[in-house]
Amino acid sequence: MPVGTVGTVKALYPEQVRQAGADIILGNTYHLMLRPGAERLARLGGLHSFMRWDGPILTDSGGFQVMSLSGLRKLTEDGVAFQSHFDGSKHMLTPERSIEIQCLIGADIQMQLDECIELPSERAEIERAMQLSVRWAERSKRAFEQYGKPGQALFAIVQGGTDLALRQASAEALVALDFPGYAVGGLAVGEGHEAMVATIAGTVPHLPSHKPRYLMGVGTPLDLIEAVARGIDMFDCVMPTRNGRHGTAFTWGGRLNLRNAQFAEDLSPIDERSTCPAALKYSRAYAHHLIRSEELLGSMILTWINTTFYQELMAAMRAAIADGRFDSWRAETKAQLGYLAT
Amino acid sequence: MPVGTVGTVKALYPEQVRQAGADIILGNTYHLMLRPGAERLARLGGLHSFMRWDGPILTDSGGFQVMSLSGLRKLTEDGVAFQSHFDGSKHMLTPERSIEIQCLIGADIQMQLDECIELPSERAEIERAMQLSVRWAERSKRAFEQYGKPGQALFAIVQGGTDLALRQASAEALVALDFPGYAVGGLAVGEGHEAMVATIAGTVPHLPSHKPRYLMGVGTPLDLIEAVARGIDMFDCVMPTRNGRHGTAFTWGGRLNLRNAQFAEDLSPIDERSTCPAALKYSRAYAHHLIRSEELLGSMILTWINTTFYQELMAAMRAAIADGRFDSWRAETKAQLGYLAT
Repeated sequence: MPVGTVGTVKALYPEQVRQAGADIILGNTYHLMLRPGAERLARLGGLHSFMRWDGPILTDSGGFQVMSLSGLRKLTEDGVAFQSHFDGSKHMLTPERSIEIQCLIGADIQMQLDECIELPSERAEIERAMQLSVRWAERSKRAFEQYGKPGQALFAIVQGGTDLALRQASAEALVALDFPGYAVGGLAVGEGHEAMVATIAGTVPHLPSHKPRYLMGVGTPLDLIEAVARGIDMFDCVMPTRNGRHGTAFTWGGRLNLRNAQFAEDLSPIDERSTCPAALKYSRAYAHHLIRSEELLGSMILTWINTTFYQELMAAMRAAIADGRFDSWRAETKAQLGYLAT
Repeated sequence: MPVGTVGTVKALYPEQVRQAGADIILGNTYHLMLRPGAERLARLGGLHSFMRWDGPILTDSGGFQVMSLSGLRKLTEDGVAFQSHFDGSKHMLTPERSIEIQCLIGADIQMQLDECIELPSERAEIERAMQLSVRWAERSKRAFEQYGKPGQALFAIVQGGTDLALRQASAEALVALDFPGYAVGGLAVGEGHEAMVATIAGTVPHLPSHKPRYLMGVGTPLDLIEAVARGIDMFDCVMPTRNGRHGTAFTWGGRLNLRNAQFAEDLSPIDERSTCPAALKYSRAYAHHLIRSEELLGSMILTWINTTFYQELMAAMRAAIADGRFDSWRAETKAQLGYLAT
């Protein structure tokens, strides 16, 4: 899922997001509840109509960004009180309010409020946050039964850090509550690729294989390939958009930092193996010039190319799985993208 | 002409510039000579190929921006020595070097180096700069005979501040040199709309009516209408793009500052009378949200709408002139755009 933080996938027209192959995008509850505001967004007809996106939208609970972005905040059993990073205004996010907001936004897939802690942390602290997240899952489910509409779904979030016993306990408790989909949260927060992959491998077997499994906030192309190899179905990440704005292109020949002087007179297309029109049309020299000049078109072009690459990567994995050749595809693609075989 | 300062009309894809109705765009010699550099741009195949613009390009001489943007600079009969505002590197711009650079860029219409001074200034100072500009016009013409290619053209620039006798002297001296087109320079530098219009009215009659007359760096919709009424054929201005990036929409109902709170819940399209797809597709409330959130899509949408509006405005004037109804069109349109009749 391309990330459309505040009601726009940054630097892309919605038609480009769709053309890149995206079926579903992500919106950030924390940002949207502060601006334009959940009740206002509902009065404006909901996020789909507001941003002219006619596909599904998944929203996070807002919890992760309350923890990482807001100023003063106080976590209790009830929820988390915080101050807006825009204007210092005070807000309270509870499991119930998060669901209410996500319903006001009109999100098709909603996420429970959870507590995502930094890694490494003490085991007791990780367990406490995991247990709290399970209790908040229950409360979220009851709230969703009140506010949710037909066709909408609420996913639960497995926590537990890199401790596989805690991950299993979290997964089993949430599966017992019977959600239509499960996320693996609390990863890509500093634990490293190997620990992340090991945690996924230890978590996924405890989640039902007939329901979507969503790895939140991940990741590099290598992360995606290795996570899919371990049973993950869905991802969201700002990497294609954020890196694009800052001059990095994800291509089928590997990652290019177009800011580098080596591209100043490179007239080859940015990625001749891409289906993105911009990857074929513009030279690396032009992209280098635009990025060095801090021109918006540089961000626009590279975000478009990267979003297309990520969608192509996922589509290629779906095709390889359907054809029963995922293992060979994985080895070839990792080599092609410049990753050492693991 | 939409302004493509450093090889991109800011926040627009070239296809959008074309779709907006633009036949020709402007590039800034000062910016391009510093980055990517004129010789490098020539090695890269010239500006058209570099930025994927298949229509004509006009470049300015670089003089205006040397005066307004660069650090230390020293003007002599020979030209102007200056330091780059990027890196402090030293450069010398003479009439000959300006033409050489514009030919390296591959500009279809090139402009002579001139000295544009601030207004108000002493008459003697205005006259000195005007006479210098005439001598530089001669040198530019000789340089263009050396560097220019078939199909390219060099325009001269009339100077003289708001002094009509100096404007007439400048125009007559330049017309005697026989250029294929003439610009009116040195306006929109603080003299105000009335003085600008009076200067145009006093200058245009001294320029041949069968050759293009180009008012440089102008202006508001009202400026364009009044200048066309006095015989101007061509314009360039950053207003549609710069204002778009900062939240102002030029519409057929007048100017809208979409940052204003009054638009926060305005679900009407940004401009229902525009032919720009974005003007019809997105609401004012969404544009307000994007601009308040400093989202790139806000700049993209409003730049697109404004560039389309300016092209539509010029197309409407051409049609009204061709139909012999320019006077009535002018009165109606000024009222529609919210300008008092003058």
